[in-house]
Amino acid sequence: MSRPIITFTSDFGRRDWFVGVVHGVLYQVCPEAHIVDLTHDIPPGNVARAAFLLEAAAPDFPPGTVHLAVVDPGVGTARRALAVAARGQAFVGPDNGILEWALRHPGARAWTLTGARWFRQPVSRTFHARDVFAPVAAHLAGGVAPDRLGPEARDPVRLPHSAPEIRDDVIEGCVMFVDHFGNALTNIDAEDLARAFPDVPERALEVRVLDHTIRGLAHSYGEHPLGTVMAVVGSSGRIEFAQVGGDCATRLGIGAGDRVQVRRLRAAPPESEPEPPGH
Amino acid sequence: MSRPIITFTSDFGRRDWFVGVVHGVLYQVCPEAHIVDLTHDIPPGNVARAAFLLEAAAPDFPPGTVHLAVVDPGVGTARRALAVAARGQAFVGPDNGILEWALRHPGARAWTLTGARWFRQPVSRTFHARDVFAPVAAHLAGGVAPDRLGPEARDPVRLPHSAPEIRDDVIEGCVMFVDHFGNALTNIDAEDLARAFPDVPERALEVRVLDHTIRGLAHSYGEHPLGTVMAVVGSSGRIEFAQVGGDCATRLGIGAGDRVQVRRLRAAPPESEPEPPGH
Amino acid sequence: MSRPIITFTSDFGRRDWFVGVVHGVLYQVCPEAHIVDLTHDIPPGNVARAAFLLEAAAPDFPPGTVHLAVVDPGVGTARRALAVAARGQAFVGPDNGILEWALRHPGARAWTLTGARWFRQPVSRTFHARDVFAPVAAHLAGGVAPDRLGPEARDPVRLPHSAPEIRDDVIEGCVMFVDHFGNALTNIDAEDLARAFPDVPERALEVRVLDHTIRGLAHSYGEHPLGTVMAVVGSSGRIEFAQVGGDCATRLGIGAGDRVQVRRLRAAPPESEPEPPGH
Repeated sequence: MSRPIITFTSDFGRRDWFVGVVHGVLYQVCPEAHIVDLTHDIPPGNVARAAFLLEAAAPDFPPGTVHLAVVDPGVGTARRALAVAARGQAFVGPDNGILEWALRHPGARAWTLTGARWFRQPVSRTFHARDVFAPVAAHLAGGVAPDRLGPEARDPVRLPHSAPEIRDDVIEGCVMFVDHFGNALTNIDAEDLARAFPDVPERALEVRVLDHTIRGLAHSYGEHPLGTVMAVVGSSGRIEFAQVGGDCATRLGIGAGDRVQVRRLRAAPPESEPEPPGH
Repeated sequence: MSRPIITFTSDFGRRDWFVGVVHGVLYQVCPEAHIVDLTHDIPPGNVARAAFLLEAAAPDFPPGTVHLAVVDPGVGTARRALAVAARGQAFVGPDNGILEWALRHPGARAWTLTGARWFRQPVSRTFHARDVFAPVAAHLAGGVAPDRLGPEARDPVRLPHSAPEIRDDVIEGCVMFVDHFGNALTNIDAEDLARAFPDVPERALEVRVLDHTIRGLAHSYGEHPLGTVMAVVGSSGRIEFAQVGGDCATRLGIGAGDRVQVRRLRAAPPESEPEPPGH
Repeated sequence: MSRPIITFTSDFGRRDWFVGVVHGVLYQVCPEAHIVDLTHDIPPGNVARAAFLLEAAAPDFPPGTVHLAVVDPGVGTARRALAVAARGQAFVGPDNGILEWALRHPGARAWTLTGARWFRQPVSRTFHARDVFAPVAAHLAGGVAPDRLGPEARDPVRLPHSAPEIRDDVIEGCVMFVDHFGNALTNIDAEDLARAFPDVPERALEVRVLDHTIRGLAHSYGEHPLGTVMAVVGSSGRIEFAQVGGDCATRLGIGAGDRVQVRRLRAAPPESEPEPPGH
């Protein structure tokens, strides 16, 4: 039997002992677990960034994986603690939108964590990752059924879902995330392209962000000369902007929230269109 | 049987290969161990910070845990290497005060690591984490009795213990550690409060640091409006200063060593007391 | 039986989910593996630094270890993917020189990864660490013979090998790597010293870098007064420059590529030789 995987995402950083203590609790409750840190470098309190990161990473993990996600500025207040079962995996975290991607799934079910028997005692006021979320995640990984954790949760907190819009001949989306390499990931994915432009090859599309236009989607990061800015369907299936051998987001001055359009490439570039800088 | 946990704390950073090599040695000697990194971002040579971190984290780990702690500016000199058994756990590191919290325990016993059969050979001049401390920690995790490691150590190096003082109607302590969130942890804990002010509810106390006064202890980080500075008993049982949704230590300009007082809240704020900034 | 170790080196950073996803793939394919992160803080695209890091770290791991190394600016292009068997270990990565140390070994054998049955499907354009390198590394750790992965590779890409030169009475080498502590590691090792100066004790040698001369090799970091700059044979067997309690590379203004000479110490320092700053 393969051993259960517990992923862990937080805004705890790695300078202190918080991540280590959570690992210790996970191993105590579920010694056979494999713990996988996604990141602990979420900017403090940035729930939306953690939610996107889970959305991007979770599909790469096998069924049965438990995702522990704690960005929790409301720790110790009346905010609820949740477990969600969706897409064959389990998700544990505060009820503040961090589990948005799981909750968005049609078959998702959520439970409020009220069963103190699954907690680490005594429960502190300020470190529910250690005392509530980690022990519950480890019990789930060890096989405890989620409906034993507490009553089913009504109306969990949701994040606005920034799905791209397809209208006329354009997909309208936005930048969601800038990664370590300076690649800027959008919310427009390969399925959106197939739906909006079923017969159009990727090289016959153009992608705009701010006043930059990238003509054609590239196949990989390395196929163009150093310094080229390009759009490519990245490893999580989303269109992303990248610069060969460089930091694209800094180069173009783009970041989360900037609007993006995909449309058919016009046959010839119009004379009047300004040349985007750096292309 | 649950698998042994080995925690690892150092000033090695994560840019090089040092932490990974130590993990490799631990797994070689004790393949069934769970390794938990506390942090490797101790500022180079800062023994006191590592000692505090162990003090804060170790109580959260189960009996039988082995704590490997290496901040070792004296590596290769005559400084001794130690193993300490205390509080049901084992601690391994250089004899420079880093194991202060373990040594402070009344029943602590310490041994000088002289038994070369437990080392990785050949022992280098400059990397005793790999060659001495890690193999010894892994042997301890695997069940080797500490008295087989070498002779009992007399007079291990101690750090000054900055215990708070309780006198008259005030507890005098200091800031010990500023964490990733900007929370400033003190050396005053919930037991000190109970001893000094047995009948006083937390909301009827006030806490001073520099020229800031916080009236009442809060219950959690999230119960006050964004930007509020407060004092709260944190997850390791210590009073800490925190700002709702912000970095308190930067806001107040406080850091390790700054003096802290706790006393009864006066019935009404005296006219002459200056208003602390930002409250 | 001891469990296989898979080390992992990359330029992915830890702010995103890439390292975690690779861990997940490794555990899925080889649940009994121990994963050891060497570093993920290689500057993006810096193949030479990753190659040096593998060279420094790999000898500390046991036979049977699999080293996964992904700094891969050419991902998605025609660059090949390789597995190399050398020195009793296996190495997996792109064919761009990152596996130089393994390939340099006389008995090394290399295979081109063409067997799609060992990949994670579908293979993306941009994340071969997840889809190609990690599953292959995990299959190797699980016991798959490397010659089942694809045909033997002819002419893998090599990095220039910066071996030191021994001529007349001097060893000429260079700085290879500056570590987290500011120690500057050279490519001159203890064997070079023994070959060039078989009868000369280390204290009777001098080491030059830029216009700094260090007289005598020290035995450890801690044996001289705080602030002393010294040369010492470090934990990977190489001569390195270090400053007691400080950052030597910044102090001396030295970095990778700077030339280094080792020669016999002259009986008395010549009058005309300028005093190196800071000694």
